[in-house]
Amino acid sequence: MKEGGLSENGGKAAFPILAFDFGGTRGRCCLGAPDGSYAQVVALERSRDDDGTFWLRRLIQAGREICIHTAGLKLVSVSFGGPVMPDGRVISMHVAGWEKVDLRRELSDAFGVPVCIENDGNSGAVGEHRYGAGRGAHFMIYMTVSTGIGGGVILGDHLYRGVHGMAGEFGHMVLHPGPNAPQFGFGKPGILEALASGSMIGQQGSIAREKMGSRVGKAQLFTEMEAKLGLLTGKDVFDAARRKEGWAIEVRDAAVRHLARGVAAAICAYDVELVVIGGGVAMAGDVLFVPLRKEVNNYLPAFLEGKVEVVQAALGDHGALLGAVASGSDYMQKHNLL
Amino acid sequence: MKEGGLSENGGKAAFPILAFDFGGTRGRCCLGAPDGSYAQVVALERSRDDDGTFWLRRLIQAGREICIHTAGLKLVSVSFGGPVMPDGRVISMHVAGWEKVDLRRELSDAFGVPVCIENDGNSGAVGEHRYGAGRGAHFMIYMTVSTGIGGGVILGDHLYRGVHGMAGEFGHMVLHPGPNAPQFGFGKPGILEALASGSMIGQQGSIAREKMGSRVGKAQLFTEMEAKLGLLTGKDVFDAARRKEGWAIEVRDAAVRHLARGVAAAICAYDVELVVIGGGVAMAGDVLFVPLRKEVNNYLPAFLEGKVEVVQAALGDHGALLGAVASGSDYMQKHNLL
Repeated sequence: MKEGGLSENGGKAAFPILAFDFGGTRGRCCLGAPDGSYAQVVALERSRDDDGTFWLRRLIQAGREICIHTAGLKLVSVSFGGPVMPDGRVISMHVAGWEKVDLRRELSDAFGVPVCIENDGNSGAVGEHRYGAGRGAHFMIYMTVSTGIGGGVILGDHLYRGVHGMAGEFGHMVLHPGPNAPQFGFGKPGILEALASGSMIGQQGSIAREKMGSRVGKAQLFTEMEAKLGLLTGKDVFDAARRKEGWAIEVRDAAVRHLARGVAAAICAYDVELVVIGGGVAMAGDVLFVPLRKEVNNYLPAFLEGKVEVVQAALGDHGALLGAVASGSDYMQKHNLL
Repeated sequence: MKEGGLSENGGKAAFPILAFDFGGTRGRCCLGAPDGSYAQVVALERSRDDDGTFWLRRLIQAGREICIHTAGLKLVSVSFGGPVMPDGRVISMHVAGWEKVDLRRELSDAFGVPVCIENDGNSGAVGEHRYGAGRGAHFMIYMTVSTGIGGGVILGDHLYRGVHGMAGEFGHMVLHPGPNAPQFGFGKPGILEALASGSMIGQQGSIAREKMGSRVGKAQLFTEMEAKLGLLTGKDVFDAARRKEGWAIEVRDAAVRHLARGVAAAICAYDVELVVIGGGVAMAGDVLFVPLRKEVNNYLPAFLEGKVEVVQAALGDHGALLGAVASGSDYMQKHNLL
């Protein structure tokens, strides 16, 4: 995986793939080539009011702008942040209005080429396996911890999709049921996503700071507002934990325990050699991974302890986008578009 | 799958496979043929004091006795109730002393033929897929709920083993952590097996009856002893629930909720079309499956609700044993022993 230049074809390189990554809070697009090189990465922030239709329109516009840099677009390849139906329709747990959008058709109309769509867990898995932390592994689980928690599974070097394309939806495992089960988005109460996603870690951080504010009797109004608006992000919590602030370490430790149970449950199910964790939360690095590795072993049966590596994704923000490039390249090979 | 006769070869039919099922409380052996027919099923109860070595000796003896009915034994195929290492060593969570036994070597010395060993979750999956409730399904999960909880996974019509042969160890997912997490055998606290295995359902039933005894002020000593000795079994609880006894329905409902979370988590991981549940507990039938199906949907994300069938195993007690016949037949084909 390398960022390629734009030199040939009279200034236009042969990047036949337009790759999109439709996330809940961010979207990206780039041009890609079958060898995994890519160029012209554009990232957009989704504003809270953007519904599916509007968000799509903004990303199509961004895609059009970078397409002027390539000659001969042959495929649009999409990573989507939510379940993808076989007919190309999509479901978002975090962005309203996607269910009314016929994503494949809209993109095919906009760019006049075939469109392949994969959910972002699957795309991230393919990206990390092909170009990132999963290179050389034959059986791996990818888990993305950002706005929500998604995942994807590589078995025998191939993406395992499941019957409805939903394999690896580890974020929807109910790990904390009962009357106090936390709720997140459209998921069932007590799912992993409601316990340890970036947004929920931020929210727990806000609540912890609010409590601290009440205790020390200062800035209460500010922290209440902060909690209400969810001003803290998962990153804020991990940054504070790195500075050894007590409230943040507590919130971090709780999130790590939940996440470790999810990772361990995924390992019990799949018995893989490697778990790659990506998404915004994984970028915290050691302040997440050092305690996480320890806790995962605490929740694994003795006969699996220490047998599975848990590592940080190598492609940072770009895993799903580069996974879309890789899936696009596979699609082109399979359909003789090369 | 059919029970074959013993007529040819001068009274000795050609059953080249000796199949074993080493369970925690029961053991079985039979003769099997590559077409799935079988004969001479022998079942033994393990007494509580039998360690691995002694239990193995008893089953070898039983195997020798039925081998007089076949001409030309070519393979021993084993379903083992616990993890099976690549070198043929085994780990039992429920029977002491197995770790000292070199199972493959002992059986190979005893019968003078090659030995293949699969854990009972995998064997049960293969059995139900080949001859039972999973016929025609391409992607299925098998979960066996008896002394413990094991599982196996069929993907694209093939057994998926994982890197260490441990795929489908759903019984070891930690679903109820924390200070009150129940413990079972050598597993970690709060695993599914400690919440909803047959033995734990029996134990919960005993505790419920003890409480009832104290409440109504009668038979307390008896029920205390009962709880201590674990006299109630999972079957007792389901039988009483079928008779609509309140205490049993409560215990059943709690177990069903735990089990449903485990099944739903397994579906989130694998996105299969079918879940087959076997083992002693599954034999309860509708009094288990009617509430279980409802609860599984309660714990699945909306986009998977109603999309996965949850059915009772069709081979009853014999799933793992017949799975060993099927695996033996595959092994013979692969190694040109036919």
